[in-house]
Amino acid sequence: MQIAVDAMGGDFAPRATVQGAVTAARQLGIGLTLVGSAAAIEPEVERSGPAHLDLRIVDTPDFIGMGEAPSAALRRKPRASIRLALDLVARGEAAGVVTAGHTGAAVMAAHAALGMLPEVERPALATTIPTLRHAAVLIDSGASLGCRASHLAQFAAMGACYARVALGIESPRLGLLSIGEEESKGNEVMRDAHRLLKRDGALNFIGNVDASRLYAGEADVVVVEGMVGNVALKVSEGLVEAMERLLGREIARSAPARLGYLLSRSAFRRVRARVDYAEQGGAPLLGVRGLCIVGHGRSSARAVRNAVALAARLASAGFMSTLQRELAVPALASQPHRDS
Amino acid sequence: MQIAVDAMGGDFAPRATVQGAVTAARQLGIGLTLVGSAAAIEPEVERSGPAHLDLRIVDTPDFIGMGEAPSAALRRKPRASIRLALDLVARGEAAGVVTAGHTGAAVMAAHAALGMLPEVERPALATTIPTLRHAAVLIDSGASLGCRASHLAQFAAMGACYARVALGIESPRLGLLSIGEEESKGNEVMRDAHRLLKRDGALNFIGNVDASRLYAGEADVVVVEGMVGNVALKVSEGLVEAMERLLGREIARSAPARLGYLLSRSAFRRVRARVDYAEQGGAPLLGVRGLCIVGHGRSSARAVRNAVALAARLASAGFMSTLQRELAVPALASQPHRDS
Repeated sequence: MQIAVDAMGGDFAPRATVQGAVTAARQLGIGLTLVGSAAAIEPEVERSGPAHLDLRIVDTPDFIGMGEAPSAALRRKPRASIRLALDLVARGEAAGVVTAGHTGAAVMAAHAALGMLPEVERPALATTIPTLRHAAVLIDSGASLGCRASHLAQFAAMGACYARVALGIESPRLGLLSIGEEESKGNEVMRDAHRLLKRDGALNFIGNVDASRLYAGEADVVVVEGMVGNVALKVSEGLVEAMERLLGREIARSAPARLGYLLSRSAFRRVRARVDYAEQGGAPLLGVRGLCIVGHGRSSARAVRNAVALAARLASAGFMSTLQRELAVPALASQPHRDS
Repeated sequence: MQIAVDAMGGDFAPRATVQGAVTAARQLGIGLTLVGSAAAIEPEVERSGPAHLDLRIVDTPDFIGMGEAPSAALRRKPRASIRLALDLVARGEAAGVVTAGHTGAAVMAAHAALGMLPEVERPALATTIPTLRHAAVLIDSGASLGCRASHLAQFAAMGACYARVALGIESPRLGLLSIGEEESKGNEVMRDAHRLLKRDGALNFIGNVDASRLYAGEADVVVVEGMVGNVALKVSEGLVEAMERLLGREIARSAPARLGYLLSRSAFRRVRARVDYAEQGGAPLLGVRGLCIVGHGRSSARAVRNAVALAARLASAGFMSTLQRELAVPALASQPHRDS
């Protein structure tokens, strides 16, 4: 199995991306194609000790920077690293792509290079989040801004399939993120999506999940429009950091608190690991015709390692064919409901 | 000064609302009008020891329940407690209203009872949030779902005025919540709002605040559409609770961690207090022609006390006239910019 990695994507690329990807390839015994500037990649591969690796480099000087407007940048750079990495998947030369680069550019390039699954109108990122009970899937966490209710219904079907394959949950409980548990709460798109999901007998829909209950773990899959989902994740990430820093300041103010911190540090660390995005590595972009894992822009080598491992796991589980098969059967969004 | 309190609003009403309101009135020496079922309110007033209080009760059996659809419920119940409380402000018999009831119903009833300020098209909730540097204002935190860019510009002007009066910040730095710091990031409404705010010379606009930096404290006022703002707040609240519970579980697993927790508990408590909504009590609903403070549905007596104290403080600072005066001068949204 070959996994292609956009070696130039992410704030700590190419060092973190190459290190993480090489570590994953070595641990999992998979083939690796690094896409980006060979001159920048090769020294990092050297540092990682490349012996006994099935490793290729696709050399290109172009990549999409974090501050670039994605559509213009992709037009201007047809040989950008993310685009060439996706082409490998489109041609069947890689089982999947991992990128920690510009999310908007990755979504746009994946759409262009891979096309969409016939039953899906918009792509969605499926991010695994921790909850008080177990891991859950938040979909869409930022691929599609401004969705219609039918898009959310498609995200629900994809998210349920992903939760089955990736989290091993037979019949995932599906919730709709809103601002209140009652069907009448939320904006118009949320209320319409609630009605669509309720009507669909194939889904285990449990109703709205109030945003304050996102981490309570009542639903295995939480469906949301991409802007709101992305804000929810980013605010969470920032809040964890802020609380750690506030706590650090308070602890520094007294000797007993410092001693207390030392004694309870391992407990802290386990909680921190639970809420750390790097544990998941990345989120699959669902809806496009090929496996594409999008990592955090601030991905560390460990996050990239985990993202490559996720790609390899989904590829060997045959996730893409399962998704395509499941979507083709009930055709949630494209077929009128029996009752109507 | 008289403050009117919707005694029936909130999950712990009337007990928590009456206790909190009476405590505030006693501590601040202000007059109090409790609106709701006299039969339910009077025993709670007795429990609070009402001696030497300027206290009135406006008796009504009707109130809006948390699960009701607000417009239908308000039509059906013209004498609902929130509506009668707002009427007191409209008639000049109270300087402000406090409610911890149904937010949507409070917004709708305030619009109907008080009307809008002439320069403002949509009302917005201005919630004070903690950050790593100081307190900041998040506006709109849930009054108006689905805003246009011009609405966000009006929120910006109102939020800046509120930060000056309530937080004492001379020239509040104004940010626009988005998913990326670049002007090109976010949805269409966010991008349009960015352009509007950048053009306005009267505002100290610092650009986008990435959602992951909401608690970093770079901006004193963070402007956002109501659905996204409400989700950001609710997700934060849920995450703090979830982290506390996760930490509690981890600490229970080992004796050193338990001891460590005891030693550092006061540090925890200070951090917890920083992020506790009850410290603020409530958020003013800006844009309507009268002072209306909306509290959390789960408001404790302490939260209600703080909300009443906020109402009294804003009333005696003449906040409503300041707001009206400031909005009338630059007329940010209703007047074309000199350059255009």
